[in-house]
Amino acid sequence: MDGHAAPDLQAVRRVRKSLMKLYDLAGAEDDLRFSPNCWRVKMALEHKGLSAEAVPWRFVEKDTIAFSGQKAVPVLVDGDTIVSDSWEIARYLDHAYSDRPSLFGGPAGALFVKFWCEQTLNRTILRIILQDLFMSLHEKDKAYFRESREARFGTTLEKYALPAEEGSSLLREALSPLRAAVRRQLYLAGAQPSFADYTVFGSFQWARAVSPVALLEAGDPVFEWRERLLDAFGGFARNARHRGA
Amino acid sequence: MDGHAAPDLQAVRRVRKSLMKLYDLAGAEDDLRFSPNCWRVKMALEHKGLSAEAVPWRFVEKDTIAFSGQKAVPVLVDGDTIVSDSWEIARYLDHAYSDRPSLFGGPAGALFVKFWCEQTLNRTILRIILQDLFMSLHEKDKAYFRESREARFGTTLEKYALPAEEGSSLLREALSPLRAAVRRQLYLAGAQPSFADYTVFGSFQWARAVSPVALLEAGDPVFEWRERLLDAFGGFARNARHRGA
Repeated sequence: MDGHAAPDLQAVRRVRKSLMKLYDLAGAEDDLRFSPNCWRVKMALEHKGLSAEAVPWRFVEKDTIAFSGQKAVPVLVDGDTIVSDSWEIARYLDHAYSDRPSLFGGPAGALFVKFWCEQTLNRTILRIILQDLFMSLHEKDKAYFRESREARFGTTLEKYALPAEEGSSLLREALSPLRAAVRRQLYLAGAQPSFADYTVFGSFQWARAVSPVALLEAGDPVFEWRERLLDAFGGFARNARHRGA
Repeated sequence: MDGHAAPDLQAVRRVRKSLMKLYDLAGAEDDLRFSPNCWRVKMALEHKGLSAEAVPWRFVEKDTIAFSGQKAVPVLVDGDTIVSDSWEIARYLDHAYSDRPSLFGGPAGALFVKFWCEQTLNRTILRIILQDLFMSLHEKDKAYFRESREARFGTTLEKYALPAEEGSSLLREALSPLRAAVRRQLYLAGAQPSFADYTVFGSFQWARAVSPVALLEAGDPVFEWRERLLDAFGGFARNARHRGA
């Protein structure tokens, strides 16, 4: 009405929001929306108190989202901004709408990393290094260790141990989420290490202290990540006494 | 020297630090330190720029740490404070030395959760819901889906699908780190959900949208966690169209 009035920023924000569009995989019915990655984004939008038009999209409709350079959804369009990949969309929303509740608050995932480490990674590493670990114990601990661990494993240490080759193959597979994460960024939390990194790194120091078995090969992003942590704090961990490489 | 001078807080801090003691598992030699959980703490201390006397301890020396109420290390003694469990020690250090670099900065672990979800959880869920998922697709997507997925799996959809019982058993096992985390706190990040939660929740919404198979049983902490997210934002996810429970 009044061309000279100061812009109503709230209104601008509302308009901008009303333009937000999410291409969302749909099934037999238009409102059957099942894509796990699109659900991540829809929950993230709710968390931020934002809304988007969730446009139904099918796998074969590559042309519809060709403008985004993507062949799959989610694709978010917010004004002039096009973002794809659920992780990138969440990062974008946190940055663009930083006045809204953060999506990455708290030590998100660090506790999960701890339990993954203990329930998946350590079980595999233990079976690889078990005989070396036993040999590295103080004499006064050996009987206690054998008795308590054999009760826990339900078998002898010797039978619980894995042949190096079988163990390495299991370990390579178990490491796949860690590998994907540290291929993408230097540390689990980003450019700097955090307790989640030290949590997993502890398992490699455990192996390195007692066993000559090479758990990781040069070229593996996990190997490079471990190298960075061995070098951290003036080589604090690298300089520790060890029997392994 | 001068009993009336204001206390030198820096000196107090230094004294306090010099008293910090970490009971640390040792092996055959006193300086062979291999405990993964103790390594987590030692790296955390380095990260915070703190030092502690790392006292060698063996499994059978339960009496030495009886004061802590624990039978295992790490146990940290900082002045009058006794803390055990590597996770709790890290939380304590971040709280007590909040002027030092945070151990839980950045979206620590959230990216890891994403890759765990995609490389472990989703593969198992997919094999459980595959036939229901296929039936839920729009007619125009079915040929594309079959062709692209069969090329990826190296076998037919029918052969790649898992019998419900075998799938459920694999899934229960795969969920163990998530279960441990949400048994301990309401959400992966703590008292409030974050993108790490939505990342995993998306996988359950995927299954719920297309399949009547009950992936989770009441009483499982993961079930309760999913219920909380189904109810979040006024039942946003619960009210979505779905074929499952």
